[in-house]
Amino acid sequence: MSSLIANRYGKRDIRLVKVVRHDGSCDLKQLTANIFLVGDFESCYRTGDNSRILPTDTMKNTVYALARNSDLDPIEGFALELLHHFLDNNPQVEKGRIEITETPWDRIRVDGRPHPAAFQRQGPETRTTAVAGSREKISVSSGVDRLVLLKTADSAFTGFIRDRFTTLAEADDRLLGTEIRAEWHYAGCDLPFNDLWQRALDTLTATFAGHHSLSVQHTLFEMGQQALRRLAEIDEIYLAMPNQHCLLVDLSSFGLDNPNQVFVPVDEPYGFIEARVAR
Amino acid sequence: MSSLIANRYGKRDIRLVKVVRHDGSCDLKQLTANIFLVGDFESCYRTGDNSRILPTDTMKNTVYALARNSDLDPIEGFALELLHHFLDNNPQVEKGRIEITETPWDRIRVDGRPHPAAFQRQGPETRTTAVAGSREKISVSSGVDRLVLLKTADSAFTGFIRDRFTTLAEADDRLLGTEIRAEWHYAGCDLPFNDLWQRALDTLTATFAGHHSLSVQHTLFEMGQQALRRLAEIDEIYLAMPNQHCLLVDLSSFGLDNPNQVFVPVDEPYGFIEARVAR
Amino acid sequence: MSSLIANRYGKRDIRLVKVVRHDGSCDLKQLTANIFLVGDFESCYRTGDNSRILPTDTMKNTVYALARNSDLDPIEGFALELLHHFLDNNPQVEKGRIEITETPWDRIRVDGRPHPAAFQRQGPETRTTAVAGSREKISVSSGVDRLVLLKTADSAFTGFIRDRFTTLAEADDRLLGTEIRAEWHYAGCDLPFNDLWQRALDTLTATFAGHHSLSVQHTLFEMGQQALRRLAEIDEIYLAMPNQHCLLVDLSSFGLDNPNQVFVPVDEPYGFIEARVAR
Amino acid sequence: MSSLIANRYGKRDIRLVKVVRHDGSCDLKQLTANIFLVGDFESCYRTGDNSRILPTDTMKNTVYALARNSDLDPIEGFALELLHHFLDNNPQVEKGRIEITETPWDRIRVDGRPHPAAFQRQGPETRTTAVAGSREKISVSSGVDRLVLLKTADSAFTGFIRDRFTTLAEADDRLLGTEIRAEWHYAGCDLPFNDLWQRALDTLTATFAGHHSLSVQHTLFEMGQQALRRLAEIDEIYLAMPNQHCLLVDLSSFGLDNPNQVFVPVDEPYGFIEARVAR
Repeated sequence: MSSLIANRYGKRDIRLVKVVRHDGSCDLKQLTANIFLVGDFESCYRTGDNSRILPTDTMKNTVYALARNSDLDPIEGFALELLHHFLDNNPQVEKGRIEITETPWDRIRVDGRPHPAAFQRQGPETRTTAVAGSREKISVSSGVDRLVLLKTADSAFTGFIRDRFTTLAEADDRLLGTEIRAEWHYAGCDLPFNDLWQRALDTLTATFAGHHSLSVQHTLFEMGQQALRRLAEIDEIYLAMPNQHCLLVDLSSFGLDNPNQVFVPVDEPYGFIEARVAR
Repeated sequence: MSSLIANRYGKRDIRLVKVVRHDGSCDLKQLTANIFLVGDFESCYRTGDNSRILPTDTMKNTVYALARNSDLDPIEGFALELLHHFLDNNPQVEKGRIEITETPWDRIRVDGRPHPAAFQRQGPETRTTAVAGSREKISVSSGVDRLVLLKTADSAFTGFIRDRFTTLAEADDRLLGTEIRAEWHYAGCDLPFNDLWQRALDTLTATFAGHHSLSVQHTLFEMGQQALRRLAEIDEIYLAMPNQHCLLVDLSSFGLDNPNQVFVPVDEPYGFIEARVAR
Repeated sequence: MSSLIANRYGKRDIRLVKVVRHDGSCDLKQLTANIFLVGDFESCYRTGDNSRILPTDTMKNTVYALARNSDLDPIEGFALELLHHFLDNNPQVEKGRIEITETPWDRIRVDGRPHPAAFQRQGPETRTTAVAGSREKISVSSGVDRLVLLKTADSAFTGFIRDRFTTLAEADDRLLGTEIRAEWHYAGCDLPFNDLWQRALDTLTATFAGHHSLSVQHTLFEMGQQALRRLAEIDEIYLAMPNQHCLLVDLSSFGLDNPNQVFVPVDEPYGFIEARVAR
Repeated sequence: MSSLIANRYGKRDIRLVKVVRHDGSCDLKQLTANIFLVGDFESCYRTGDNSRILPTDTMKNTVYALARNSDLDPIEGFALELLHHFLDNNPQVEKGRIEITETPWDRIRVDGRPHPAAFQRQGPETRTTAVAGSREKISVSSGVDRLVLLKTADSAFTGFIRDRFTTLAEADDRLLGTEIRAEWHYAGCDLPFNDLWQRALDTLTATFAGHHSLSVQHTLFEMGQQALRRLAEIDEIYLAMPNQHCLLVDLSSFGLDNPNQVFVPVDEPYGFIEARVAR
């Protein structure tokens, strides 16, 4: 007989816009939520007994119902509320995970002043959170996705291994572009998440900008280290920094030099570097 | 015998990053260019005679070579330079069209100050231009793509036709979201394009924000009209305003009201409205 | 005062799955429809008077309601039914256009026999139709989209213009890959569309395979010409054949030759060739 | 001081087309490869010492160079060759992982006969493999991605939990659509991978078709169980079966019934079910 050695289910891409209406102005939040539950569901797999299955359609309804009386701010708080709801009301569920991505909007400015009820989508980067755990222990992570940064100076890549398949030239001065996904883990669940998120983001971008980079790995580690140094509330950070390569164009056939000025950005293939840094 | 009644060819998605290096700082421009040529190419189609065909690979090389000595600023100027190049050097070409999309970047701020050589991708909206014409006459259009705006007040849709397939309720107060593509045509080729683009964009967003909207069409027309009113250099504007629908969630089954607060954004199907407004 | 010089509106991406149930088996059709209407809508743009506006939500409902009693086979027939519905019931509408894309499914085979009620998605190519016109005249076009073909022999590109920006080598034997969009126009509205579509598709693919290609243009024209020659019901055909370039990898640094064997497919930039061929 | 608690790097989306040329005919293979290495790279992160770093550009070159003398058939064999290459030549590397996705092509048929040198892209499903391990132990998995299946009969979902947020109706007869990702692990490294892959695929699709489904979980488990039962060479299988929901359209407002015939396919939100089944 086969054994079920792991399983998980839930609802993904639950999209939500919430308008909080004040006298004379509105606040706007846009989220996308994923819900995953782990628990004692084996009878469903083996015999089709659904008596322990909370339908994923109900998970979706729950998000909308709980959003009615929440201002979804911060998203970490709403994720915690959702996770507690599913754990408190479903004894068959052992663990859960709530992921929320916030789509950024800013007010349209009219003659320099922010409009009370009209908004413009920002991006491409999004704010994220993942809240996961059991009745015993819940942990909160937050992060940023699709943060695209590029340095035009202070980036080198030299001294690497050369084998018979190596054609890459040593580069004292190259473009360093990357689309960053970062996720940091908080030491607690009751923290000023909005302020912390902004400080973490500022630390990551400022460190990327100011670092004298000898490789992607080198800069990634410094970014993680600085985040841990400046934010006592963070105890671990994961960074994925895929290259967005910009290749120097060879213009010599046309009688032109190209002193690090004209590049072709290419999407693939791309270098992929990921690491986890902790205290 | 079959007849060739229209044909066009070129190179698309030519991607380019240009770093202009100053003492102590860099400027960064990222573009994607499309090139289309129309002319006397019939012998190529009929007999495979390529003697009048400028390879699309050469078009790509030309973009990189001309970019070497251009600062690509404004993109309208670079598009004009490219079009003139192809018309001047290729007698078999009758007409051409150059489309350029600029990917927006801003400097990373470190302690509030813009960094001289580190950048962050902005978006999602992009600046665009299309320069088209012949040796006799060239016209310049510019625009914006993927400009996502949303109003949470001052938008209604009532008084429409009701037939036996109508279920939509009249709405005095709905969300109005749209991903705008705009393209406006300039009366000349030698204009302060950067300044005009910013003023056109500000006019479109401010009009969207301030308009008491009775329909998408109503707001689209007002946006076009205001652009023509405020910018004498524009003689025509095209606007495509597909809805980004936000559907009010029915929470009544859960004993909750929903006074225009919780919405589901949906990607499809979507209303699509496009129009061209001229003086 | 500004003038409204063109306008069009409708609903896009109306998605539909229809299951036609027989004794012991099912037929499955999946479509995506776009609807565009042109007419006398100026008062809506100028004053927000919606009294001539059929809501796009109603267009969507109409598709589902009419699908109830149609087997959607062929899609050209369903598109005609939709267009007639909108023209017959909306005097303010002058012209309409219905576009339908069919997503292909095939039956799952179990021990070699097609299953009566289980299906597998095919692709990537899709069958398309566009039916457009007014109360006086309606025309039917059909086509194929995302048809990806590649020849590994019998494709050359030589004898083209060389200028100072040309680096491309003459190629007697290259890979020719392309993602084809074709749209052909029928001489009538009451034709055996399923049979014609299959014959057109077979003609296009067989001509591509068998042609001794001297350029994309050369092969495109032969494909159009053969379609017109073999299908008397077609009077015009549009073909867009963007290159899917496969670049020969230079392995000489590794002491290896590469006699047209190892290639890198690249998405961009890409050559784009389009033409319209008629009798 | 911060500690580096995990790290991995490599090259992703290395795309490759290989033409194997015989007398009078060609074989075509298209692959995309990802390479990941784990090892002793800490000095690179901490000090920018790249002396243990094999550049990701060299990984890409290696794929093309090794492809020159391989027919890439089966992809599992080529992945093994790549992994052995990196482990054998890089003492600083402890573990590696090679992922390959094969894009399916079939010969164009001309008058019913397969053409020797012209091909048509198939899909949407792709064949995948992942080969991972160290000098001591390597394991081979293979799978399928984007396999889209849909049942129009024999699928129910009843007897699930109902709470105050449940609105879903019990369904004795619903559409069951899913885009499957499957990955199965082989007990060995030297197996007839092409034959096994086809048998695994046939088992998965036939089981999906024939199963009387009481839930996605129920059918997923049966699919995994049958794969283990029929293929002795497989010792574990992972299946992810996100729903492709088809919602029954309510036509009652239009005086029409809808006996499980007209559906709207929706992309999001979607139920997500994943599990791992072993002997």
